[in-house]
Amino acid sequence: MAKKTAAPTMKDVAQEAGVALGTVSKVVNGIPVGKSYQKKVEAAIKKLDYRVNSYAKGLKAGKTYTAAFLVPDTLNPFFASLTYYINKALAKRNYRMLLCSTEASPEMEQIYLDMALQNKVDGIISLSYNEALKIQADTPLVTIDRHISPAIPCVASDNFGGGKMAVRELRRLGCKRLAYLSIGSPLPNEATKRGEGFLSACTEYNIPYEMLRLLDGAPFSDFTDFLTQHTTDGVLDFDGIFCVTDHLAKQIITFLRSQGHRVPEDVQVIGFDGMRDFATGEYLCSTIVQPIEQIAEVSVELVLSEDWSKAPPLVSLPVRYVSGGTTKE
Amino acid sequence: MAKKTAAPTMKDVAQEAGVALGTVSKVVNGIPVGKSYQKKVEAAIKKLDYRVNSYAKGLKAGKTYTAAFLVPDTLNPFFASLTYYINKALAKRNYRMLLCSTEASPEMEQIYLDMALQNKVDGIISLSYNEALKIQADTPLVTIDRHISPAIPCVASDNFGGGKMAVRELRRLGCKRLAYLSIGSPLPNEATKRGEGFLSACTEYNIPYEMLRLLDGAPFSDFTDFLTQHTTDGVLDFDGIFCVTDHLAKQIITFLRSQGHRVPEDVQVIGFDGMRDFATGEYLCSTIVQPIEQIAEVSVELVLSEDWSKAPPLVSLPVRYVSGGTTKE
Repeated sequence: MAKKTAAPTMKDVAQEAGVALGTVSKVVNGIPVGKSYQKKVEAAIKKLDYRVNSYAKGLKAGKTYTAAFLVPDTLNPFFASLTYYINKALAKRNYRMLLCSTEASPEMEQIYLDMALQNKVDGIISLSYNEALKIQADTPLVTIDRHISPAIPCVASDNFGGGKMAVRELRRLGCKRLAYLSIGSPLPNEATKRGEGFLSACTEYNIPYEMLRLLDGAPFSDFTDFLTQHTTDGVLDFDGIFCVTDHLAKQIITFLRSQGHRVPEDVQVIGFDGMRDFATGEYLCSTIVQPIEQIAEVSVELVLSEDWSKAPPLVSLPVRYVSGGTTKE
Repeated sequence: MAKKTAAPTMKDVAQEAGVALGTVSKVVNGIPVGKSYQKKVEAAIKKLDYRVNSYAKGLKAGKTYTAAFLVPDTLNPFFASLTYYINKALAKRNYRMLLCSTEASPEMEQIYLDMALQNKVDGIISLSYNEALKIQADTPLVTIDRHISPAIPCVASDNFGGGKMAVRELRRLGCKRLAYLSIGSPLPNEATKRGEGFLSACTEYNIPYEMLRLLDGAPFSDFTDFLTQHTTDGVLDFDGIFCVTDHLAKQIITFLRSQGHRVPEDVQVIGFDGMRDFATGEYLCSTIVQPIEQIAEVSVELVLSEDWSKAPPLVSLPVRYVSGGTTKE
């Protein structure tokens, strides 16, 4: 995979040929250009051994150079970022992307899948909530964060390791009593492993803890009620909280501060995802950062691979901790 | 246009036929379903006069039911939101969307356009930075926020009116000396009208003002130098600032506060776009809100219209002011 990733790009060909990027694009896409340009570009392609696989594949019938990406929406910054990097990883390989916002609805997902199959896409990457996705066995499908079946490769961050990492960091920073807060799909998915990692590390280090795991649709007041019940004489029972996402962490921090709890002085909070404020570039909170760009790259690489059916059922990518001001360091 | 927008959806057909949405999708896409279902769906389509145009069009050769959306990226929340609503507006009409992240590079735009044309898309919606976009005259193209030529319809917020609105609001809230700060493309585009509206209203109301309009690539220190130069004995010369985007407004507010200026007590700041914090749902700052959903809907409606070539050169959609805590109300 490393070899393919480092393959020459269209830009390299343009530079080698001494022509504009657009000229290379035209040649690659079979749009007429001046003969001397055509020759220069073809020579550069040959010299750099540019995208030999894509070229060879192009000769086979039925290739569309199109892949579909199913994602609940692009309003969530994590999804928006993933969309961007998958688009980029596909474009690098001369692939177009069909964007399918599914609203996390199984029916919409099936509709988009049918649409995608009708258009004979070469592959589908899906951040899916649909357990019962019906799909032709011969269309390469890669899921992100959610297992559909052992036969379908799934790419995800090391969620279990990330959960353990959050506990280790909070412990290092002096926390003595922890809480884990989550909200998510009732379906089995990779994100639930964050809580399992939390549990495993708390047990390993013998740290007292509480867990509140809600299902999508639960009101936010379930969290605030829980936190209020765990407050004695104005002091929160926890000095460290790990939240399943940065999104939830930010909501929890806002609530805690509104109740007079100081973050990080009284209680330290760690989220998960690694989202940054768009304007300032700062992390929203201390967080376990997902390698979004790598998730995108690996998903695209797998779904377009000739050996898709031999891909491993789960590719787990490493996460890292960064302080974003809601922990002591 | 209003009539088309209110046309029955696939959901309506499903309800009318008493079948699942996926069944309607299959029938519409020519995928086999049980005979009794086929009949029910066809009857409902007929009764509701569902998407008669799309159906008729489908019979013509060469329709792909695919439209391309060219956008610099989906990392910017405004672009991400626009991507979401355009995707939704297309899906409502059974159209797929090719997402093309252009990185605001004219060359990438041309490459994507060539790709899109090769794939014979039925229309292209572009948030383009490329003045010299070469495009076949018969491929419907609608631009957002940027005029390419009078022959190509452009959909935009009422940017001029929004600039005036910001001044009127700041004046109403007691501001006596205003500044306008912007950064953007050197190419003529709709956003420059925000500054023109600001200028027009300051002149009309006889309010003293300064304007600093930077080009993309200028360092942020150009803004901070300007603000520092306009500070006398720790007091800022301005008590009201209008910024070309919420993104810039947020950066400016962060800087002002770091210098000990209180927002909104000492200086009130209004941005443009209407972005909200994803976690809390709150506006990032007081702002002129763009009608993103309407921009998406109108763009899609225009680009898929049979009368595309008769579309007006500019469709200007109304904006509104909301207080987001960086003005006194």
